[in-house]
Amino acid sequence: MTNNADHTGFSKGKLGQILIKRLDEAALFSEPGPGVTRLFCSPEHRNILPLISHWMEQAGLTPELDAAGNLVGRCPKAQAGGKTFIMGSHQDSVIEGGKYDGMLGVALPLLALEALRHEGITLPYGVEVVAFGDEEGVRFPTTLVGSKALAGSITPNQLEARDTQGISLKEALITFGCSPENIPAIARDPVNTLGFLEVHIEQGPILEQSDHAVGIVTALTGIERHQVTLIGKAGHAGTTPMSMRHDALVGAAEMVLAIDSVLQGTDDLVGVVGKLDIHPNAVNVIPALVTFTVELRSPEAAIRHQGRDAVEAIVKEVATRRELAFDMENTYSADAVACADWIMQSLEEACTQVDQPVERLFSGAGHDGLAMQALTDIGMLFVRCKAGLSHHPDETITANDGETATRVLMAFLKQLTPP
Amino acid sequence: MTNNADHTGFSKGKLGQILIKRLDEAALFSEPGPGVTRLFCSPEHRNILPLISHWMEQAGLTPELDAAGNLVGRCPKAQAGGKTFIMGSHQDSVIEGGKYDGMLGVALPLLALEALRHEGITLPYGVEVVAFGDEEGVRFPTTLVGSKALAGSITPNQLEARDTQGISLKEALITFGCSPENIPAIARDPVNTLGFLEVHIEQGPILEQSDHAVGIVTALTGIERHQVTLIGKAGHAGTTPMSMRHDALVGAAEMVLAIDSVLQGTDDLVGVVGKLDIHPNAVNVIPALVTFTVELRSPEAAIRHQGRDAVEAIVKEVATRRELAFDMENTYSADAVACADWIMQSLEEACTQVDQPVERLFSGAGHDGLAMQALTDIGMLFVRCKAGLSHHPDETITANDGETATRVLMAFLKQLTPP
Repeated sequence: MTNNADHTGFSKGKLGQILIKRLDEAALFSEPGPGVTRLFCSPEHRNILPLISHWMEQAGLTPELDAAGNLVGRCPKAQAGGKTFIMGSHQDSVIEGGKYDGMLGVALPLLALEALRHEGITLPYGVEVVAFGDEEGVRFPTTLVGSKALAGSITPNQLEARDTQGISLKEALITFGCSPENIPAIARDPVNTLGFLEVHIEQGPILEQSDHAVGIVTALTGIERHQVTLIGKAGHAGTTPMSMRHDALVGAAEMVLAIDSVLQGTDDLVGVVGKLDIHPNAVNVIPALVTFTVELRSPEAAIRHQGRDAVEAIVKEVATRRELAFDMENTYSADAVACADWIMQSLEEACTQVDQPVERLFSGAGHDGLAMQALTDIGMLFVRCKAGLSHHPDETITANDGETATRVLMAFLKQLTPP
Repeated sequence: MTNNADHTGFSKGKLGQILIKRLDEAALFSEPGPGVTRLFCSPEHRNILPLISHWMEQAGLTPELDAAGNLVGRCPKAQAGGKTFIMGSHQDSVIEGGKYDGMLGVALPLLALEALRHEGITLPYGVEVVAFGDEEGVRFPTTLVGSKALAGSITPNQLEARDTQGISLKEALITFGCSPENIPAIARDPVNTLGFLEVHIEQGPILEQSDHAVGIVTALTGIERHQVTLIGKAGHAGTTPMSMRHDALVGAAEMVLAIDSVLQGTDDLVGVVGKLDIHPNAVNVIPALVTFTVELRSPEAAIRHQGRDAVEAIVKEVATRRELAFDMENTYSADAVACADWIMQSLEEACTQVDQPVERLFSGAGHDGLAMQALTDIGMLFVRCKAGLSHHPDETITANDGETATRVLMAFLKQLTPP
């Protein structure tokens, strides 16, 4: 398969080169660029399956497209229903995304298994690597379809979600060659599942700042979203004295600034006012209505709730003082999911074995672990990405970091012992 | 014509009642409500002409639709080319506007002339009252067509402005029965024009606050508009640490608040950030690009320019400190137009004669005087409106205030002497 391979393993530097080359090749399965656009159950999704299947076979796994659109590679032990450790990430991308978000977590564990195989190592437990069909939630207004299917948590309702063409998820799966009626049957048995590990680019700048190739994720952040509505008083912008105005935008501006100040001053809490809309939004009219969103994320529920309380207090105080009618509605909440201690510890040991410093950090983004934690213990390994950039054509990792992460995962898999 | 009239004039209270009744009747010439919608060269414009013509005839004037779509009522002296004082306002409304903005300034001077006629008074100069076709600029992306025609300042380019149906102003005028090729011929002779006075609702709350029925306008405000662009740094809202963000919206919020503070603290300066747009405007994305408008209005150019300097300083300081790229572009400027001292003084005397307290205020809105000042001295009389509301179906004046304004105008016309 590769000239530089021998039965004692790949030479130093080779794993990273192979990894980058494979991800470059995978990126070709994309709608026209810039960047990578590969949506769930799309022609690009269809066309990349043989490539991933090939990687699976090189790793000693048998590929199979399941009822939920996941491409699953299983070793004989897993196929036989033995205790199995699951790895994987998503094959899909955002519109004009990068080469690494998702696909790294498919290609890297397959390469790690292939390298272990080359070293002649047989793992004492079953493994499977999953290329989840959908995690980004771009095509359908639902997400984590593949991981929810494995966790047995898909609702029939989700299969009715429709894309902008009016095609339902169920219809798309059938067209893709899947049998959505068999989704309940692919739910994994928790008793025989050892855990789930996802390798993913960090999507943030923390590892770059600390100059570490990899980081061990402690938790997937909890998220809550709110919609704030402010109603001021319409008025002619030329004829209403400044002192008599109830300008909803000026009120919103004071809130945005105060909310940012709370977020800047609180550890382990991030957030953003990402969406703000004004009515009537005309150059010569006093803004009468402003709506804006507040998103808060923290790995600690208590910190997130304190943040929410602070935001509520700001909205109430500013709106009352400025005589604006106001409303704050919670539109979404998802609790944080902690990574399993034993997976974090085992990843730490693996880092130490390959001479990597240990860094723990939390994930501010959601991942398939949010669904998989209903099934089993989860863990994540982050890989440094350039400038923290993700969801962008310029998203990049180095071959060296890819190699390091692969070797950490190999060490992790070697020392993992089934209970 | 009216049973309560005699040759010594209308009884107290009657003028206000007639005025309100006439404006109620005029409001029926509207697209389906709420409120009044009567656009330039529309069927509603066409259909209201006989009503206004009737008022003109009652006032002793001869109505004529001119080449620019104005309905002009002229007394014999004006028709003969004598020294003429012009009054009037616009017949058109905004979409779902009120009964008074514009039409008050047509109906009121006609009623004042009719009342003077009933008193047996013959003015020693010519008068004409104009119902300008367009001031609001709703149908065509151009405005003040009628007053610019009288002032001789229409450009051929303006006649090519097209409405959303693709109909040019020129075509609309021809369909309406006008001869746009004759527009240059209707420009008035400055030598024979004594001045221009417009009666208009205040569109603001100042007269209501001071409890005065009318106010004498000192100037039509100068206006300038700017577009500010802020470019921050895109980033995942979950994974970018707060301290590493360059959030364009947080920067904009600080600017909006500081600009409002400058405006609140400066006399004779009003302004607004009326339009603000965010990119990408998504709940979970750090705003990377914000554009917003700043409009500044003042009757004093120096004050407006100081305001602009302050806004520029704020934008520069905040953007630099927050490491946002920025641009501030001037998109529109119109200098203030002062009302003529002799018209203001004469209106003051008229107020005193009818036992009205004198109040001077500036107009924060633009009016036909902006065009007419190129031709002649201008003045404006504002009438108190409820809650400062305009451009709204609930826009209201009282019959009492209408009566007061009519009697102030009658006194003004009686004492006006041609030079």
